[in-house]
Amino acid sequence: MNIDMIRAAALRIRGHARVTPMLTSPFLDEIAGRRVLVKAENLQHTGSFKFRGGWSAVSAMDDATRKRGIIAYSSGNHAQGVAAAAAAHGAPAVIVMPENAPKLKIDNTRALGAEVVLYDRAGGESREEVGGKIAEDRGLTLIRPYDEPQVIAGQGTTGLEIATQATALGVTSGDVIACCGGGGLTSGIALALEAEAPNMRVRPAEPEGFDDTARSLATGHKQRNPTETGSLCDAIITREPGDLTFPILQRLAGPGLVVTEDEALHAMSLAFKRLKIVVEPGGACALAAALFNGDKIEGDAVVAVCTGGNVDTDVFADALKRFP
Amino acid sequence: MNIDMIRAAALRIRGHARVTPMLTSPFLDEIAGRRVLVKAENLQHTGSFKFRGGWSAVSAMDDATRKRGIIAYSSGNHAQGVAAAAAAHGAPAVIVMPENAPKLKIDNTRALGAEVVLYDRAGGESREEVGGKIAEDRGLTLIRPYDEPQVIAGQGTTGLEIATQATALGVTSGDVIACCGGGGLTSGIALALEAEAPNMRVRPAEPEGFDDTARSLATGHKQRNPTETGSLCDAIITREPGDLTFPILQRLAGPGLVVTEDEALHAMSLAFKRLKIVVEPGGACALAAALFNGDKIEGDAVVAVCTGGNVDTDVFADALKRFP
Repeated sequence: MNIDMIRAAALRIRGHARVTPMLTSPFLDEIAGRRVLVKAENLQHTGSFKFRGGWSAVSAMDDATRKRGIIAYSSGNHAQGVAAAAAAHGAPAVIVMPENAPKLKIDNTRALGAEVVLYDRAGGESREEVGGKIAEDRGLTLIRPYDEPQVIAGQGTTGLEIATQATALGVTSGDVIACCGGGGLTSGIALALEAEAPNMRVRPAEPEGFDDTARSLATGHKQRNPTETGSLCDAIITREPGDLTFPILQRLAGPGLVVTEDEALHAMSLAFKRLKIVVEPGGACALAAALFNGDKIEGDAVVAVCTGGNVDTDVFADALKRFP
Repeated sequence: MNIDMIRAAALRIRGHARVTPMLTSPFLDEIAGRRVLVKAENLQHTGSFKFRGGWSAVSAMDDATRKRGIIAYSSGNHAQGVAAAAAAHGAPAVIVMPENAPKLKIDNTRALGAEVVLYDRAGGESREEVGGKIAEDRGLTLIRPYDEPQVIAGQGTTGLEIATQATALGVTSGDVIACCGGGGLTSGIALALEAEAPNMRVRPAEPEGFDDTARSLATGHKQRNPTETGSLCDAIITREPGDLTFPILQRLAGPGLVVTEDEALHAMSLAFKRLKIVVEPGGACALAAALFNGDKIEGDAVVAVCTGGNVDTDVFADALKRFP
């Protein structure tokens, strides 16, 4: 896993993934007490950065493998990213999703042409087991959501864009906060920044109670979350950091930042009001950390990656109502 | 008023206005029955394209004039655009706003450093009279919202970007629908397309009951709306087309498109769900026309300009609730 793989992925996704904008607002700067640059990956195709990793992985396969088909397991954003990338490549796709995933994500994944297989996350079924079995039965190739070199390479292209866009705005040092589940995006950005913006440092943001990465970085050993359910931030809830991603984060990432669910909802409302973008709870953790955890951040400027916008209507309306 | 002024404005706003993205979604294409390209000017600084015209006008002034100060009258988006541009140039700004304008727009205009003077639109006060008097008393330079060459030039830079971005997506002909009030944006885009994308044609979109531009184009003479109040689409409600803008539209624009308020709200909800952007009712009329008036549009692709995103929370939440 290295920068050359990220640069190669950038060439493959060019013209397919969107170069998402870097947004700013003086009102957010005032709240944060420093300049806040928001990388709006919620505006990526399929509504999250996951499209990058999906496209990178599918486009890196040989034709014969791709034609046999692809399988992925995901609470929704990886599902949609892989489904869209597979469809664009003419490859069949099976997506294993928890039955309590947001309805919008399940519906979208189906509409993007994938076969959706639901499993009972709350009841203790493991998506790895369900997905692995179907893959074997049908001869499909599994695209893991983060512990997959070509997925990390695809997510890392976000970091290449951040380096370019932040530099254009006069920012060449400081923290780059990324909402972090298994660490595919965070580790990919880490490698990209190491090569392209060595004075910038990635830091993972997680919701309270699901801060496995922050605790793993603090202790130097992989830590587990006690559960994978019960958070509105469904997009970034994983059991523990990945085997590929964690060593990269250990080497390159700064300390993890932890936000409350209310802070994430408040950040969603501010993104609505000040940036005119729609962010889902899990996708708002980095912005929440930038806005409400300023005492744990150094430097005159901070970059926050809004990672996704696939939020059900009632959750979004509730965030606006609670933080008007 | 010509393309050279637009190109000069593009040089002045470069690095200050944002190059807003051109967004797409297969789900919107399916509803419209053709490709839909959405120019997201709601993501512009201050949440609408008006920042372009404000910056263009303020940056075109000589230093002495600028230092004396600027005045503008606006229901909100022009107000914020001018206020932000004036502040960035160190020029004092007075903004005359109707007292029933959305609270967010009034608050933002004040927060951007402008002095806000409210007037009673519903009670029959004219913003032109109120604004003109203050300008004379204080020696301020009035920046009109649309009948002002440098404002039209600034808005026209949107058209230059549309030509470039649509071409990059393989679209070089078809209708470009713009939400239309006084016609500053629509006429600016018209001139830009004439020069840069001669097979594309601008068309104004307006809400039902406030379709002065559509009726003016149809009859060949400027028509008036019976009232300037009573629409959620406050951003694009004007009495009649401008003296500068209407001749440009007569020469270059296609027939106007008229949408219902419900269609605008429905388009807002779809922009939320499918594009992850926040659009205000007046800013959603063009997208509504593209999605729900397909029988009045020709060609395999259509461009819709989402012109602004400054919407109060309750209006937005209501749109999501009514069109889930």
